[in-house]
Amino acid sequence: MELCLQRIRSTSRFDNAQHRLCQMPKGHDGKHDEFPYLRHLLKTNPTVAAKIKRDSTMTTGAAWKSEDAGPNRILRWMMLLSDEELLEYGVNMVALSAQVVAKLREKAANYESCMRVARKLTWLAYQMPGAPVPLEPIRIYLEDFYGSMNVHSTYCLVCRLPLHFDLFANARRGKADVETAHSNPRIHDDSNVGFAHRECNIAQGAKTLPEFYAWIEAILDRVKAD
Amino acid sequence: MELCLQRIRSTSRFDNAQHRLCQMPKGHDGKHDEFPYLRHLLKTNPTVAAKIKRDSTMTTGAAWKSEDAGPNRILRWMMLLSDEELLEYGVNMVALSAQVVAKLREKAANYESCMRVARKLTWLAYQMPGAPVPLEPIRIYLEDFYGSMNVHSTYCLVCRLPLHFDLFANARRGKADVETAHSNPRIHDDSNVGFAHRECNIAQGAKTLPEFYAWIEAILDRVKAD
Repeated sequence: MELCLQRIRSTSRFDNAQHRLCQMPKGHDGKHDEFPYLRHLLKTNPTVAAKIKRDSTMTTGAAWKSEDAGPNRILRWMMLLSDEELLEYGVNMVALSAQVVAKLREKAANYESCMRVARKLTWLAYQMPGAPVPLEPIRIYLEDFYGSMNVHSTYCLVCRLPLHFDLFANARRGKADVETAHSNPRIHDDSNVGFAHRECNIAQGAKTLPEFYAWIEAILDRVKAD
Repeated sequence: MELCLQRIRSTSRFDNAQHRLCQMPKGHDGKHDEFPYLRHLLKTNPTVAAKIKRDSTMTTGAAWKSEDAGPNRILRWMMLLSDEELLEYGVNMVALSAQVVAKLREKAANYESCMRVARKLTWLAYQMPGAPVPLEPIRIYLEDFYGSMNVHSTYCLVCRLPLHFDLFANARRGKADVETAHSNPRIHDDSNVGFAHRECNIAQGAKTLPEFYAWIEAILDRVKAD
């Protein structure tokens, strides 16, 4: 599918703004829209839609908000800018601890990757049992990118158990039982993301999935050898 | 070993104070002391000694300090008191979220258990390679409770790899690479505690160790079946 990609003005002052692009099909009617495939979830399950937007485009929230360093979350593509450039947007990286800076920089991703991630996550969310049935144009849009959508086909990226849409229930409080997860935590792109149980995502930590599986296998080997 | 168990006055205003007891051998010379076996580490590795005291006697730190609910950490035996009794010590449990209350109450342990945990952790810390050699009276005291101390015999409670004393290096910032861990996270007593890598403790989460091992085994079975 060819996309419109008309530039859209960002409403955030913490945004270098050159990147917001209309994701509607090329030659579409009506308004430009960055997240057209989220229109339906925004009505039926607004906290889920907000979570998909947030997880795909923003760094994780951090405990450094109090340090007068800008917003609690930062747009992932802002993390591609230099410290000097970020200062112009009111984000003072130098005031943050090396640990926080590393964590933020690790979440860097360009705008196009973030848009692909949001699309992929929406496609996955609709395939959880308990999810609303997507409106036809949204289904067609998403399937054009990732193929046929089948309910019961979204599994936890880490533990491989099925994920039910109800797990999003606590998303409002920023502590859903399901989280956006990465096969490789340092790569934020559609081929590398999925959903995972919160406890699975926490257990995986900074490891890639192959590293995580090798790690737990070695633990079990030692436990059994005792 | 029979202990002195003379009552010692607590210096904390968040303490019901009936519980502080001298842990020196019965009939000892000199001052009463609640942590006589930590005297040496207090000099050689004060952050490690402070960590052992803190982990054995206090609940984990919480993000609720700002809610005007008393200290950031609370003595574990205070968590055995009722909400009404706690109010008298300036700790207003009702002002906290149900989630935080549950987390705090889960850390409850009586004073005697906490004292046993501190002793056991000290015994374990001295057996890590890189630890200082315990002063003779401290070695004798600890071995009287838990048996012979041998360097290289302290393993991560979770992953069973050896733990080096250097892992305590970041303890000052409250983020050591080694943490106090529990085979069953809801039981705080000497038979149930040990040290673990921070990442192992986080991965274990709220599960007991048998639950954790069964969980990761099932994950590996599913991954291999794919």
